[in-house]
Amino acid sequence: MPAGNWADLPQWPTSMLERVRKQAPRVHCLMNTVVQKLVADGLSALGAIPSMTSSTEEVQDFARKADALVVNLGTLDKQRREAIGLAVDVAAAREIPWVLDPAHCDYSPPRARFAQDLLQRQPTALRANAAEYGLLTVPDRVVAVETGVVDHISFAGQTISVANGDPLMAKVTGTGCLSGAVIAAFLAVDDDRHAATAAAMLVLGVAAEKAALSASGPGSFEPALLDALAALDGGDILERAKVTG
Amino acid sequence: MPAGNWADLPQWPTSMLERVRKQAPRVHCLMNTVVQKLVADGLSALGAIPSMTSSTEEVQDFARKADALVVNLGTLDKQRREAIGLAVDVAAAREIPWVLDPAHCDYSPPRARFAQDLLQRQPTALRANAAEYGLLTVPDRVVAVETGVVDHISFAGQTISVANGDPLMAKVTGTGCLSGAVIAAFLAVDDDRHAATAAAMLVLGVAAEKAALSASGPGSFEPALLDALAALDGGDILERAKVTG
Amino acid sequence: MPAGNWADLPQWPTSMLERVRKQAPRVHCLMNTVVQKLVADGLSALGAIPSMTSSTEEVQDFARKADALVVNLGTLDKQRREAIGLAVDVAAAREIPWVLDPAHCDYSPPRARFAQDLLQRQPTALRANAAEYGLLTVPDRVVAVETGVVDHISFAGQTISVANGDPLMAKVTGTGCLSGAVIAAFLAVDDDRHAATAAAMLVLGVAAEKAALSASGPGSFEPALLDALAALDGGDILERAKVTG
Repeated sequence: MPAGNWADLPQWPTSMLERVRKQAPRVHCLMNTVVQKLVADGLSALGAIPSMTSSTEEVQDFARKADALVVNLGTLDKQRREAIGLAVDVAAAREIPWVLDPAHCDYSPPRARFAQDLLQRQPTALRANAAEYGLLTVPDRVVAVETGVVDHISFAGQTISVANGDPLMAKVTGTGCLSGAVIAAFLAVDDDRHAATAAAMLVLGVAAEKAALSASGPGSFEPALLDALAALDGGDILERAKVTG
Repeated sequence: MPAGNWADLPQWPTSMLERVRKQAPRVHCLMNTVVQKLVADGLSALGAIPSMTSSTEEVQDFARKADALVVNLGTLDKQRREAIGLAVDVAAAREIPWVLDPAHCDYSPPRARFAQDLLQRQPTALRANAAEYGLLTVPDRVVAVETGVVDHISFAGQTISVANGDPLMAKVTGTGCLSGAVIAAFLAVDDDRHAATAAAMLVLGVAAEKAALSASGPGSFEPALLDALAALDGGDILERAKVTG
Repeated sequence: MPAGNWADLPQWPTSMLERVRKQAPRVHCLMNTVVQKLVADGLSALGAIPSMTSSTEEVQDFARKADALVVNLGTLDKQRREAIGLAVDVAAAREIPWVLDPAHCDYSPPRARFAQDLLQRQPTALRANAAEYGLLTVPDRVVAVETGVVDHISFAGQTISVANGDPLMAKVTGTGCLSGAVIAAFLAVDDDRHAATAAAMLVLGVAAEKAALSASGPGSFEPALLDALAALDGGDILERAKVTG
């Protein structure tokens, strides 16, 4: 179990990244309308294949072709709420991994209630911040990612902490939403849900650090992050990884 | 009243920008779907906190947490029309500033009628171009921003003119929509609605001039504009400001 | 007929590009929500004027002011489906060119059926890939663009092939959707639908090659593509064109 011995097995995140690039998993995104483009470009840069429709007529056809799903509750409306239910039905029936990002559910009680209902459907991983966790009860089998300056990825009583990333990420709308999609891509290529989720957070965090080296501000950081995701190699990860647990 | 004596008080736009960065006002955006990402990133680069939902179930919860509102009528549909009404109700009840941008209402009679209805609800500021003003009757208490090569900001019989900006802004979809959101952020930190609106137009115009120095075209201008908004300081503003009135 | 004698008349694509820039045709886009911003910015960089509303209340008013239409079936939902029907009615009545992009209709049977219904309404051009063509029957009067490493543009028994472009285009969501909009802009300025469609694919492909020269990856490629579209001249086209037929 990589989570138990990072020091002995530092190659696993790189190995998973290589599998994402080789297998090019299809990740269907039920994504808020603000960041659909960034999330699609981020998945493509990583080597995965994004799709984005939230149409109730079409979402099940897309979910049937997907290797993983990410469900983000930003800019939630009736149609996407219904589409999410339909897509999760397909994910459950096909036993493909799916990630829940309750995106600011602390701002909106109906969104928080919907997030809790979705948690009962056993997503593979939950990505949320401390304020969002305060409103949610997480089932045992769900990998719990608590994002912050240091990201804590907990499962089955163990926690992996990842201290990589850059403050500019907080200045670019959608980098958090992208992390949910990157987790889904990694879950699609490895059955160790704890290690795969941690590897995804590590890869995005290291890419952000590389991007910050060439960025002049939040505007130039965004294309630099996509360039870094596409160019990232095992050397970058080994050199920069700040992982404990 | 700064508007009356720009020459004596050239520090007020910088002072307001510093307050935006320090207070980080929450700006809720009822924004056309095309430019949500740019407007969110522009507000973040400036130091404000954007939110974007147009869902009728959620918009009031977000408006209750907001310090200002921007209502943009681009890509208007039934749901956003209803959400706008709900959000303006909250803004009126909480007496927070809100900005109306009728976005191409000259293309669509129903949009023009809706814009006129909203004007009767007394937005703090109206941002429009000459063609749009031709269709609208502006109540006295509304700050009227007429955009063009020179922007004219009029209130209570006085006009402040701002001649800053760059032609590349017209080549990047959403820079005009962003200006409405920047106005909302400045209105959130200063009660002088005339001066705050003028300062917002000045700050965005100066940022555009700085961005144009490093841009190779409209594509590289957009990230450069966000970088410039994040880096702008009082020296840039004093050096470049072309303000009269 | 340019298509027959590229070698003798290599100036026609440049002449059409110059007319796009001079006439600034209005292109109304019924576009998937993911790429609206890129398509709008791409049309602006080219010199055309984009509009994007998919609202059923407004789409006909916008279509009446447009010089051409592009109908993209990505993220298709009930509202856009209805708006597309209304916009195509206007295009047919006004006899303005329109382009159909069935965007992944091979993923969704209802989308494929809708695409076939739209083909019966005689779009000026169809932009699709081999998988999509496998599901569609193309009427005679429709210019058929089959995209791939080499793009094949067929009409009335003749085929023009364009081998320009760059692999980075496939890593940036929306470059394909943009090509449909660029075709619409070229169709708006020239009655030779076969040559205009080929010229549009050539111009975008050459711009992509220029952009790739300065890009460090998919993130920096996107702004570079917009810069290249704005800066492209006849020399670039003549130097790089790989056109046969």
